[in-house]
This record gives sequence, C-alpha cells and structure tokens, in this order.
Amino acid sequence: MKLLRYGPVGQEKPGLLDVDGVIRDLSAHMDDLIGDQLSDAALARVAAIDPSTLAAVDASVRVGPCVSGVGKLMAIGLNFSDHAKETGMAEPAEPVLFSKYTSSIVGPNDDVILPRGSEKTDWEVELGVVIGKAAKYVTEAEALDHVAGYCIINDVSERGFQLEGTGQWVKGKSCDTFAPIGPWLVTRDEIADPQNLDMWLDVSGVRRQTGNTKTMIFSVAHIISYLSNFFTLHPGDVISTGTPPGVGMGMKPPQYLKAGDTMRLGVSGLGEQKQRVVASS
Amino acid sequence: MKLLRYGPVGQEKPGLLDVDGVIRDLSAHMDDLIGDQLSDAALARVAAIDPSTLAAVDASVRVGPCVSGVGKLMAIGLNFSDHAKETGMAEPAEPVLFSKYTSSIVGPNDDVILPRGSEKTDWEVELGVVIGKAAKYVTEAEALDHVAGYCIINDVSERGFQLEGTGQWVKGKSCDTFAPIGPWLVTRDEIADPQNLDMWLDVSGVRRQTGNTKTMIFSVAHIISYLSNFFTLHPGDVISTGTPPGVGMGMKPPQYLKAGDTMRLGVSGLGEQKQRVVASS
Repeated sequence: MKLLRYGPVGQEKPGLLDVDGVIRDLSAHMDDLIGDQLSDAALARVAAIDPSTLAAVDASVRVGPCVSGVGKLMAIGLNFSDHAKETGMAEPAEPVLFSKYTSSIVGPNDDVILPRGSEKTDWEVELGVVIGKAAKYVTEAEALDHVAGYCIINDVSERGFQLEGTGQWVKGKSCDTFAPIGPWLVTRDEIADPQNLDMWLDVSGVRRQTGNTKTMIFSVAHIISYLSNFFTLHPGDVISTGTPPGVGMGMKPPQYLKAGDTMRLGVSGLGEQKQRVVASS
Repeated sequence: MKLLRYGPVGQEKPGLLDVDGVIRDLSAHMDDLIGDQLSDAALARVAAIDPSTLAAVDASVRVGPCVSGVGKLMAIGLNFSDHAKETGMAEPAEPVLFSKYTSSIVGPNDDVILPRGSEKTDWEVELGVVIGKAAKYVTEAEALDHVAGYCIINDVSERGFQLEGTGQWVKGKSCDTFAPIGPWLVTRDEIADPQNLDMWLDVSGVRRQTGNTKTMIFSVAHIISYLSNFFTLHPGDVISTGTPPGVGMGMKPPQYLKAGDTMRLGVSGLGEQKQRVVASS
C-alpha cells in the first residue's frame, strides 16, 4: 500500500493512493499515520478495505509528511561506499548516527527555507525507514519485521552550521523545513529488497545525485539492529539511511542551493518529491 | 507555581504542589503539561485557581516527567567555566549543542537502566528550561519571555557510546531512561535569576557535583537566542543547559555508575531527584 497524509499543514488526514493514482480518504478508518496505527495488525485492517469504497480526494490537494508524531528522526552519515570514496573519507567501521530534530519535518513538496545567514545549504536524497513495531536489542535477522514501510527523505543540510563552529551536526541538520518526508509511506510488503532501490536528485533540472541502495555500507537491517542496542525504536520513529554521491559539498568547487532553485528527487517505488528553495523571511 | 505530572507511566495527570507540599489534582483544569497548555495565558488560568479547591493526591504517588510531548530535547555541552577548566578543555566560543532523543525521558525518581555493554555511564545535574512560547530569531533580551519554567534534568551519559566509535554524541546521551526530568516545572515567575541557582549531585551518598548556574559560560537567555537562529523552539521543547564540575569522567581515575548505586540531585528552588541505577534486563 501507498499511504499518505493530505490537507493543510497540521490538519492532515490519512489517505491511500489507489492503483489508478487517485488519493482516497482513509479518515473514517484510522485517525492518522502515527504510532500504534502503523502496526502490522492496523495496516492489515487498512489493506482489507476496498479502495473504491473510499471517497476520492482532489488531486491538487497538498500532501503532508507521510508519518505524524515522529518521536526520533535518526540519520546515518557516510553510508554509501561510492559517496565515501567521493569525499575521500574512509568507510566508517560502524553506522555514523546523527540526529535531526523532528521540527524540521515538512511535506514532500513544501518549500525549503534557507535559514538566515545560510551560505551552504545542501541536498541529500535518502531512503527513509518508518518503524512499525518497537525494537530493542533486535538482531539483524529480525530487524525488518519492525519496519512499517519506506519513504523518501531529503536530508537537507546547512554545511556551515553542521560542520563549522561548535557543537554537533544537529544544528545544521534541523533547520525548519530541512526534512521533507514522503509523499508516501510504502508498506514493506511492496518493497521486495530495500537494498536494491535506485535514487536520484535534480537541482533546477540538472541531475546531481545518482545511486542505488545496494552500495550502502550498512544495510537497513543492520542499522535497525545497531540502533536498537542504544535505545528503543518506537512505532513512528524514522531513520534516514544515508545519501549516495553527488551532494553540493562534494562538487569542485562546492555548489549550494540558492533561493529560486528547485529540488526534485526520487527513490524506486517510493514516488518523487519536489521542493522550491526560498529565502528566510 | 510548581506544576507536575503524577500517576503511572504513560497515564500521568497534571497537578500542582501547594504551599504545604501537597500534590493537588489539576486534571479538571488542563489536559496535560504539554505544548500550548504552557503558554502564559494558560498558566495564568491555572494560577488563578485556589489550590485548596483541588483534590489532594496521595503523597506516595509516582511523579512523572514534568512536561509531556517534548518535541526537541536540546542539550548544551561544556557550558560551565569551572567544568571546562576541570576537563582541561578550552571554553567554547559558541554554545555546544547536542541532542538527546525524547524517548530517553523518564520521571525524576524512576530507575536509570545501564544499557547492555555499558561500562561508562555517568551523571550530570543540569538546569532544564521548558519553552512556553515559540521562539525564532529572538534576541537575548526577549529570550526569557519564551520560557514557561525551569526543572531539574539528569543528563545521564554513556561515555563510551558518546565518545568512542563512530557518530555523534546522541547515541550515548539517549539510552532509555537517560533523561530524568522534574519533579516540578517551576514557572519562571518563581525563579528570580536563573543565573544564580545552586546545583548538587550525590552518588550513593557521596557528594560528586557542586556548582552554581552563575558559572555558566552562556546564559539561559543567550542559549535560547542562539538556538532560535537555527530552528523554531516550540512550546514544550526542553533545553538542558550544561553541567557543573564533578562528573565521573573527570575523576582521576574516572568512576562510573554501577547497578545498585543511587543518584540524588537538586537545583535551588526546583526540588530534588533520586534514581536507583539498575542493570539492563
């Protein structure tokens, strides 16, 4: 299933995309795509509904982030071998966890705002993983049973805020609008192999990133197992699993987003995102 | 006012502590200590209630974290000049922001669980700041108007997970139970000067930390203003503002928590916390 949330910011309703690409209203059947409504049992109840019995929604509706009430937005740095090579850095021995605050989450096609003073705002197409069942001390073999589904995430990053000055990466990773998520939460049954998905990102019509999740250094299953050694992963938590080659910071010379740019990005089977880049008010 | 949340984990109700130290039930007047119920207007409505009209709650009740639905749990490292001196590190030029995931939040007297494989779990008494009004690009002069109140936070930290291996501090700062918060959210009108509060922490009856918020390198107001340059601070967001000297990592030789230890800690006017340290199951 392709699940989504549609409507104005903060008032999104749950929906699903039917086989004809029509958004159908799910709000009579679930409150939201959130926490315990992401369990296997809850999703099976939704899957049993005949989509043609659900009201169709106007195609022009805004699409919001495909999961609500995210507790933890975890992200993995330097997780693609070809991206590591591009940066000249050694492959990490363990997943490189960093945090994005959940207040950075927006819809897949909402504007991305350049924060005041930003000179180095960059793009990163990533595969997002949405947890459906609590995970603590799970093995790699068990890990994917804890996944509700997958989505696209643009891990927008202000490199100056992230890497220069003091503190941890979080302040360059968490600016408002820096985490477009969606359009769809694609349930895991539709993704035969999360380690073989094509990824791409264009900036203002020019292809900048091309990759495939098969070059991940640490697989989705490995990352879930690893993180579950540190803390409980809860339903609705989201993991952004790293970006393939082609970010602005890696260009020679580096090239960053400016107001008026557009980003378009996609991952096989998970749809596309498109954001305008705008200046801070 | 001293506001609090009491009852079983996940079912806490809002309450207040009256002048005689009796917990009074506020659940007829507010849903929870969360988000928009922390605004000046909402808190003024609570302040207008005569506490003697509220049902008294049994003193033996569990006290939960004093704020619910925390969006961002932000923390500042190396923020006390005497602590910086103790570690031999230079004072930072800007606040050192790091993240603790909110799934680490527990009540002030709940058990702290040593994660599997932990050999370096450490204590950190800190002043917590709870945001009451959204803050973006606020000046230092305006900053404290955005504070609902203050509380104690024990910024429990696994130093191996935090500092060794890969990734950012977050994985050593966010283990389950690593953020006891409370007992009370003390509204800002009761704290004449957040930069003159004594702080202390005992481990198993031995005083380990002694300090005062006057030796903070960056004041609460400065930190709020600084963080608001990166992202919007929302009502219910919490900032842990750094720890004074005396953490286990700074001892010679370093000394860490073991199962069976107890931590007791306090900040002037904000009450006390007490946690047992237990092994992971």
